[in-house]
Amino acid sequence: MNIKTIAITLGDPAGIGPEIALKAIEALDKRLSAGEFRLLIVGDVATLQSTGKKLALAVPVVTNLKDLRDGPIVAILPTSPLREPIVIGTVSAESGRQAFEAVEIAVRHAQAGTVAAIVTAPLNKEALHLAGYNYAGHTEMLAGLTGVRDSVMMLAHDSFRVSHVSTHCALEDVPKKATAQRIRRVVDLTYETLLGLGIASPCIAIAALNPHAGEGGIFGRHDIDVTSVVVQDYQARNMNIEGPIPGDTVFVKLRAGHYDAVIAMYHDQGHIPVKLLGFSIDKLTGKWNALSGVNVTLGLPIIRTSVDHGTAFDIAGKGIAQASSLLEAIDYALKLARQPARETTL
Amino acid sequence: MNIKTIAITLGDPAGIGPEIALKAIEALDKRLSAGEFRLLIVGDVATLQSTGKKLALAVPVVTNLKDLRDGPIVAILPTSPLREPIVIGTVSAESGRQAFEAVEIAVRHAQAGTVAAIVTAPLNKEALHLAGYNYAGHTEMLAGLTGVRDSVMMLAHDSFRVSHVSTHCALEDVPKKATAQRIRRVVDLTYETLLGLGIASPCIAIAALNPHAGEGGIFGRHDIDVTSVVVQDYQARNMNIEGPIPGDTVFVKLRAGHYDAVIAMYHDQGHIPVKLLGFSIDKLTGKWNALSGVNVTLGLPIIRTSVDHGTAFDIAGKGIAQASSLLEAIDYALKLARQPARETTL
Repeated sequence: MNIKTIAITLGDPAGIGPEIALKAIEALDKRLSAGEFRLLIVGDVATLQSTGKKLALAVPVVTNLKDLRDGPIVAILPTSPLREPIVIGTVSAESGRQAFEAVEIAVRHAQAGTVAAIVTAPLNKEALHLAGYNYAGHTEMLAGLTGVRDSVMMLAHDSFRVSHVSTHCALEDVPKKATAQRIRRVVDLTYETLLGLGIASPCIAIAALNPHAGEGGIFGRHDIDVTSVVVQDYQARNMNIEGPIPGDTVFVKLRAGHYDAVIAMYHDQGHIPVKLLGFSIDKLTGKWNALSGVNVTLGLPIIRTSVDHGTAFDIAGKGIAQASSLLEAIDYALKLARQPARETTL
Repeated sequence: MNIKTIAITLGDPAGIGPEIALKAIEALDKRLSAGEFRLLIVGDVATLQSTGKKLALAVPVVTNLKDLRDGPIVAILPTSPLREPIVIGTVSAESGRQAFEAVEIAVRHAQAGTVAAIVTAPLNKEALHLAGYNYAGHTEMLAGLTGVRDSVMMLAHDSFRVSHVSTHCALEDVPKKATAQRIRRVVDLTYETLLGLGIASPCIAIAALNPHAGEGGIFGRHDIDVTSVVVQDYQARNMNIEGPIPGDTVFVKLRAGHYDAVIAMYHDQGHIPVKLLGFSIDKLTGKWNALSGVNVTLGLPIIRTSVDHGTAFDIAGKGIAQASSLLEAIDYALKLARQPARETTL
């Protein structure tokens, strides 16, 4: 098996991206040295170097991609030089531009097959918009850069995996977005991803749109008229697709291992359980202290995973950010990159 | 302080109600003997006696309410005799009738002040409807029996408390139900309840309706136009009301102790986190094995708490049901009954 290269984009350079990237490299030292995989850090070199100096963390060497195959196991692929200074913890157009450029470079390399997967550190939407890139977020940017119209957000925390039928829209728009066609697309992509993770016969539950799955139609007919029909079709093909299961019990069952993944109908339905299990806050300091969980974008022509937290401007530059979510995202990317159908050339 | 009497309604006699009631009495033996409070079990005597015999649990004596003040510390107040046999684990009109009658009797005693609070075991909605009582659930029945139109469901798991702006309705109806008037009513009742629980200066967060609290209006304007205005009004009165806080982080903060309660906009938004923290499933047996959590109905002229699980027909009569949620519900009822404003005569 050839050695896979995973690209890490640094996200907004004024956030915790550079810090967690350097911490992840340090944590992965043995596995990288053993030749398990390579890392290519894509982003602003100056910020990465100042962060490394401040926090006494080793910084990889700047590289030229043509040297990568025989070059260092960890390297930096730089974005264009800063046009104005970055102030850590502050929103700026220049940070937004840097964040976008890193993703764009990484996507082009993934499309060319020179990196096997992209793992993205968080960016700031306001900075992105100030820089003139009006995407609703990372996922929409990746969809735009790769020409895809119907990608799917899966959040995962170990084997607690949740794919979303809708995400960034008003709650009132959810019912009309949860069409049979969209639900099938989300189930199919999730099923394929679970196969790619080595699960031989995936079992997926579809969460109900309405409370109590509509209570026999009293609280809405979507679960009967749309979801039940979709589920019956899959079951007729002998696939382990269950539902609609009421939202307030389906995630308890997921945690107990009844399913390999749950399909959530909307943002909060899926995000609330994943974040409640993956995040916690230190009661003494009031700071977030367990940022675990991975965001996997399904349906792109490239493999992309991400941390599931934000830029954390309030703690950026203080040396207290945790790399646990980034490390999980790298591991998920590696697992997906190793499925046979995804073999790349580098 | 006079000794409070708490009424426990047995719910559907074919479910786990009779079993968990007897187990709760056993678990509370020392506190009851010490005179901390009294229990009045309201329901079908025959089922309670057969359950006690089968599971080798002590059954309280049948009583006449006028004897209660100087009578036994635990007593049964019987509903009218069974008109046909009850089959454990089975839906029937007779079970529904029994469940309704127990609640009706308990409500009348609470209104008369002869019991300080009602704690309800679960009933089956289908059985209730077969018996001709077309309520959407327990809460709606209690509202009907007491002539109240706008009660509030609060779910609590220790200090993790969540009140609901809407509950049993289709998701598409949620935005129009989340009016400023209704949100204020839910905040006010929750605030009053927290005071009653002994919290001197309650802090309450209101969850956002839309993901990311609408992201500055891009995903809907409800959080800006409705919730923010309500919050500003409370803050102008120096009350610790915060929000709108995005749904996917507000419950992590609630668990960390940032607030005394959260106001959820709809059923699943509030139920998913409470059940994920309060329930679990045994991985070996596949059975629910930690049914904790309390349902408190706010806005009634009487105090009412409830278990937050169902009749569990699948395990009824097997002796494996847990009384933990019922015990928590009794404790919550006691705390609320002891607030000065709620003093009753018995």
